[in-house]
Amino acid sequence: MMSDNSIPSKLLDDAVNEFSTLPGIGNKTALRLVLHLLKREKEDVMKFGNTIINMRENIKRCACCNNISDTEYCDICSDAERNKNIICVVESIKDVMAVERTKYYKGVYHVLGGIISPMEGIGPGDLDIKGLEQRARKEDTEEIILALNPTMEGDTTNFFLYRKLAPLKVKITTLARGVAVGNELEYTDEITLGRSLANRTLFSVMS
Amino acid sequence: MMSDNSIPSKLLDDAVNEFSTLPGIGNKTALRLVLHLLKREKEDVMKFGNTIINMRENIKRCACCNNISDTEYCDICSDAERNKNIICVVESIKDVMAVERTKYYKGVYHVLGGIISPMEGIGPGDLDIKGLEQRARKEDTEEIILALNPTMEGDTTNFFLYRKLAPLKVKITTLARGVAVGNELEYTDEITLGRSLANRTLFSVMS
Repeated sequence: MMSDNSIPSKLLDDAVNEFSTLPGIGNKTALRLVLHLLKREKEDVMKFGNTIINMRENIKRCACCNNISDTEYCDICSDAERNKNIICVVESIKDVMAVERTKYYKGVYHVLGGIISPMEGIGPGDLDIKGLEQRARKEDTEEIILALNPTMEGDTTNFFLYRKLAPLKVKITTLARGVAVGNELEYTDEITLGRSLANRTLFSVMS
Repeated sequence: MMSDNSIPSKLLDDAVNEFSTLPGIGNKTALRLVLHLLKREKEDVMKFGNTIINMRENIKRCACCNNISDTEYCDICSDAERNKNIICVVESIKDVMAVERTKYYKGVYHVLGGIISPMEGIGPGDLDIKGLEQRARKEDTEEIILALNPTMEGDTTNFFLYRKLAPLKVKITTLARGVAVGNELEYTDEITLGRSLANRTLFSVMS
């Protein structure tokens, strides 16, 4: 399929079509990006293409937590300073990055690889729940933090995991729900505001 | 340089850095695109990378008009139905595409490869003016249409080309300046409106 019948070259058109398969990149943006690459040095464009192919070919999943990794175990699982007895359960590697950016968390992760979503045909069997159970059963594991998105699907998955893990001796926690820093009460939805009232905490200067 | 110190893999980080070199793609968008590619099949991502490398390696410039082409002469120059005696001079292949989209023009092109811009250090020597002169000197050439952008640099280049080509027997024309279709007079700049008055044309139902 020709994306734009004014494109005078099949090679160019193929490249534009490849770029338009990326999310949020339409035909016009794709053409702009390809024309930019056409102006760059050949070596530079080869490096661009090969870096992406190399990434997809060689990237691994951490054998312990499913986080992406260049080696068998990811940087976090291999870090002697991280507390291996606290496991934060997240949906995807994007969420690992989000928690890491807080610079607050010193435990390890378990990447589920998705959340239960009947609408998208994702059931518990599609997620790495077995691996989590195995890790939760370990003598030393103290706490499992359920850190899934505060959405309907996230809550469903949280509940499913809670039912699975509750028989074990491990402590199960979840992220605090409440008003977000910088938000205005006037525009906070009533469920969030209600919960943050119900779960109010003792005032401290740092809170 | 690590683009985001929460990225847990050098392979991933390298790919994000490559994407962020593209115009209009910041670190966040680059990460989103790379994570998308990570979810796709390996073969699919190899095709993506190789198509782009292949495009940059094998694309040619038309030996006649400098338009991009998969073969020695571009589709337009090779098309027996196009009038080779009318040459439309444009800055870049983007402008060839723009004129082609009008579906109105049946002549051929000459891609200069830039316009004279002292600010960006581009002089006449950086453009393919010699090739244009050679084509203009040909017995059969009837008309040269100067179709550069209606900007200061475009006008300078138009004037430079006019001085070069005026001694030849060829007719030299330029794009009509006037009010754009769909614009409101109230918001049209005074130079454009003044010119469109000075160059007013006889009314016809199609105008």
